[in-house]
Amino acid sequence: MKGALIFIGDELISGLVVNTNVIVATRQLSSHGFQVREIVTIPDDLSLVKSYLKDLYVKYSFLVLSGGLGPTDDDLTNQAVAEALGLNLVENQEVSKAIKDSKEYASSQEIAKKMSLLPEGAVPLADNLTMAGYLLDFKEKLIFVLPGVPHQFEYLLTQKVLPLLSQRFKAEGLELSKSLRFFDLNETDLNLFLKSYTLNTQDLKIGYYPLWPEVKLVVRSKNQGLLSEVISELKKKFGVSLVSEEDRSLVEVVGDLLIERGKKVAVAESCTGGMLASLLTSVAGSSNYFERGWVTYSPESKMELLGVKKEHIEQFGVVSYQVALDMAEGVRRQVKVDFAIGITGYAGPGGGTPENPVGTVYIGLAYQNKVKAFRFGFYGLERREVQLMSSYTTLDMLRRLILYDESFLRYRFALGVEERSC
Amino acid sequence: MKGALIFIGDELISGLVVNTNVIVATRQLSSHGFQVREIVTIPDDLSLVKSYLKDLYVKYSFLVLSGGLGPTDDDLTNQAVAEALGLNLVENQEVSKAIKDSKEYASSQEIAKKMSLLPEGAVPLADNLTMAGYLLDFKEKLIFVLPGVPHQFEYLLTQKVLPLLSQRFKAEGLELSKSLRFFDLNETDLNLFLKSYTLNTQDLKIGYYPLWPEVKLVVRSKNQGLLSEVISELKKKFGVSLVSEEDRSLVEVVGDLLIERGKKVAVAESCTGGMLASLLTSVAGSSNYFERGWVTYSPESKMELLGVKKEHIEQFGVVSYQVALDMAEGVRRQVKVDFAIGITGYAGPGGGTPENPVGTVYIGLAYQNKVKAFRFGFYGLERREVQLMSSYTTLDMLRRLILYDESFLRYRFALGVEERSC
Repeated sequence: MKGALIFIGDELISGLVVNTNVIVATRQLSSHGFQVREIVTIPDDLSLVKSYLKDLYVKYSFLVLSGGLGPTDDDLTNQAVAEALGLNLVENQEVSKAIKDSKEYASSQEIAKKMSLLPEGAVPLADNLTMAGYLLDFKEKLIFVLPGVPHQFEYLLTQKVLPLLSQRFKAEGLELSKSLRFFDLNETDLNLFLKSYTLNTQDLKIGYYPLWPEVKLVVRSKNQGLLSEVISELKKKFGVSLVSEEDRSLVEVVGDLLIERGKKVAVAESCTGGMLASLLTSVAGSSNYFERGWVTYSPESKMELLGVKKEHIEQFGVVSYQVALDMAEGVRRQVKVDFAIGITGYAGPGGGTPENPVGTVYIGLAYQNKVKAFRFGFYGLERREVQLMSSYTTLDMLRRLILYDESFLRYRFALGVEERSC
Repeated sequence: MKGALIFIGDELISGLVVNTNVIVATRQLSSHGFQVREIVTIPDDLSLVKSYLKDLYVKYSFLVLSGGLGPTDDDLTNQAVAEALGLNLVENQEVSKAIKDSKEYASSQEIAKKMSLLPEGAVPLADNLTMAGYLLDFKEKLIFVLPGVPHQFEYLLTQKVLPLLSQRFKAEGLELSKSLRFFDLNETDLNLFLKSYTLNTQDLKIGYYPLWPEVKLVVRSKNQGLLSEVISELKKKFGVSLVSEEDRSLVEVVGDLLIERGKKVAVAESCTGGMLASLLTSVAGSSNYFERGWVTYSPESKMELLGVKKEHIEQFGVVSYQVALDMAEGVRRQVKVDFAIGITGYAGPGGGTPENPVGTVYIGLAYQNKVKAFRFGFYGLERREVQLMSSYTTLDMLRRLILYDESFLRYRFALGVEERSC
C-alpha cells in the first residue's frame, strides 16, 4: 500500500503560498499506515501533469492529486487525468445539476459545464456535489483527485480518502501509532533509550516533530504488544517529563488539571509581557481557573500594583529572587487563588548584568503556605524563545505540583531556589 | 533560468518532519527571479535519486538537491549523483583534512573518508569545509548539492547558491520584488484593482502570503518603472490599510512609531487574556513604550483593579460599551500614558448573548481628553482568531491615531462607537 502525491498549481512552486496540504497528507497517510514514496509539486502544465501521472500510477497502489479542479482556464487537471489514462471526459449529470442549483455558480452555465466534465468512471467524493474531488478506481489502482483549497483537501482526505484506502488495503495490516508530548526532556537519554529498541526490531518506527519547547514523539508499529511495551517503558523512564500520551499540548493538559481539581491561578509578569496569561487563556473554559493577571513591565508598576519593595529593587535589582518573591506574594495578597505567580527576568536582546545575563529568569510561586522563587538560565535563546521557555516552565511547574509534589520541581535549566517564610 | 528542486530523505515523506527547506528555497529563488518548475520529494533510495536526477538535469538550467550528505549508511546522495552523471567519486584532500582536524569527527576516520568522497569536479560551497554541500558545473548546468539540515541549507542557499546563480544568469535580467503588508483590507477591491494592472501586462506578477490577520502582497517585475507605478497607485488607493512597504509586521511598525513619537501605552484586557500585552512586548525595546497591563478576566478583577462600576456590569453586562469605557478610564486614572486601552468581549466558543453574540468585542481607548469605545463583530471566527483580530485591531487603531487622526478609525468589522466626556 505505497503511494505517491502530486500537487498541482503555479502558486506552489513560486514560493508565494506554503503548501500546507503536503504536511496534512503525509502526516495523515503515514499515521494511518499508508506509505508515501514520492511527492511531486508542479505548475498547472498539461504535459507535466500527464507525464507524472502516467509514470506514477503504474508504480504505486494509490495516488493523491491536489489542485487544478476549479472553473478557470488554468485548471486543467481533469483533462490531464483523462488524457493520461486514455479516458473520455463525460458530463456527470448529478454534479451538473448541483452546480446549476447552487447560488455560487448560478450566474454561469459555462462554469457548471466545465466542473461537471469528469473522466469516465469518476465517483465524486463529497456529499455536497458542488465541492470538487473524485475517486477513479482504475486498473486496481485508487486515484484520488482532490481540490487544492486547504480545508476542502483536508476534509476529503480525512473523511473520504483514508476510509476508502483502509477499506481497500485493510488486509495488508495497518500501522498503529501513538503521539506523546514531553517537556524539559533530556533528548540524549531519550535517543539512547529508543536506539536500544529500534536496534532490536524493524517493527518499530520512531519520529520527532518540532514543537519547541515541547517535544513530540510519534511511535508507530504494526505490533500492538510492542507498541504498548515501548510506551510503558517510556513512562517509567521519562514519566515526569511526559506531558501527554494523547498528543495534547502542555497548555491543554494544565487547563484540564486545573479545572478537574478546582484550582485557581493569578499571575504577575514582567519579562514574559503577558505571554503566560495569554497561553493560560488560549483554551476554552479558562475562566474556570484564570482569575486575573498583571503585566508589571516598569519598576513603578511592580511597586504600585504588587507592593514590590523599593529597597529590594535597589539592593538586588528588578531581576532577582527577592523581586520574584515580592511579586508572587503581592499577587496572593490581593486575590485568593491556589497558585500565585510572579515572573521577572531578562528576555533580551538588551539588558542583563554580569550576574544575571540575558536569559536569566526568576519564577516566583506562592502556594499553600509557601513562597518560593526559582532561578533559571535560558541562555543562548532569542527574546521570544526566552519568553516561551519561561511561560512553558511555569505551566509545567503547575502541572508537576498538581500531579506530584514540590520535590519534582527539578528542571534542566534551573540554577537555584530561594524560599521565604510567611 | 528555470530549475528544479530535489529533496531527499525518508523523514520528509513520512510526515514526521515539516520540510521547511522547500519553503525557503521556493521563496528565495523566485524572489530573486529564478523560476522553479518542478519539486520532487523522495526517500533515501539510490535508484529513485538517480532516476530523477537524470531526468531533471537535462530539462533545466539549474538543480538544487538537498539531503543525504551525512556520514551514515543511509546517506547516498554523493553516490547517486556520481552514478547518474557518470562521474567517479574521488577524495577531496582539503575536505578530508578539514574533517580529520575537526573535533566533531576526530574519532572516526571512516566518516572523514565517506564525507570527503565527492563526484569529480565538485567544488565545496561552505568556507568551513566540514560543512557538506558543493556545486557541480556540469554540461553547462549548475547542480547544487546541499545538506538537509535547515540552517545549513538556508545559509548555503542564500550566501552561496543565489550569488552563483546570479553570476551565471545575470544577463537574462532579474526580477525586482516588493513586499507590502496590509491590515483591514477589502480584498475584493484589491483584486479588482490588481486585475486591471495584470490584464494589461505580462511583466507584473502578484502573489499573496497567508499572514492572517495581516495580508502580505508581493509584487514582482523586471520593469522597475512599472513596479514603482503600481506601488504608488496601491498607496493612493489603499493607503490607510497599508501597514508597511518593507515587509514589517503591524507589531513592529506600531512599536517603531511609539518609540519615534515618545508615546506610552497601558492596557487592560479581558477576552484577549494578555495577548495584546504579549504582542506589544514581543519586540525588543518595548519597555520604551509599554508601561503596564492588567488581565482582568473575572468581573471582580475588573471592579477591584480598574474601578469598573458594578452597576454598569449589572445593567449593561461585562461585554458592553460602558465596561470598555470604564476599563480604559480605569487604566488612565492609574497611570500617565498617551493611550490607555480596555478590551472586553466574547472570544467563544462559550458565552455570548443575543445582543452580543460570540465574536462581539468592545475596544475602549482613552487618549488626549477623550474616552471612546468601539464595538466590533468578529463573527464566525475561532477563539484564538477573535483574540488575534481584537489585538491586531487595537494595534492598528494606535497606528492610525499616530499617523492620521481619529476620523480614520473606520474598520470593516466595526459596528458602532460611543464616547464619554471627561
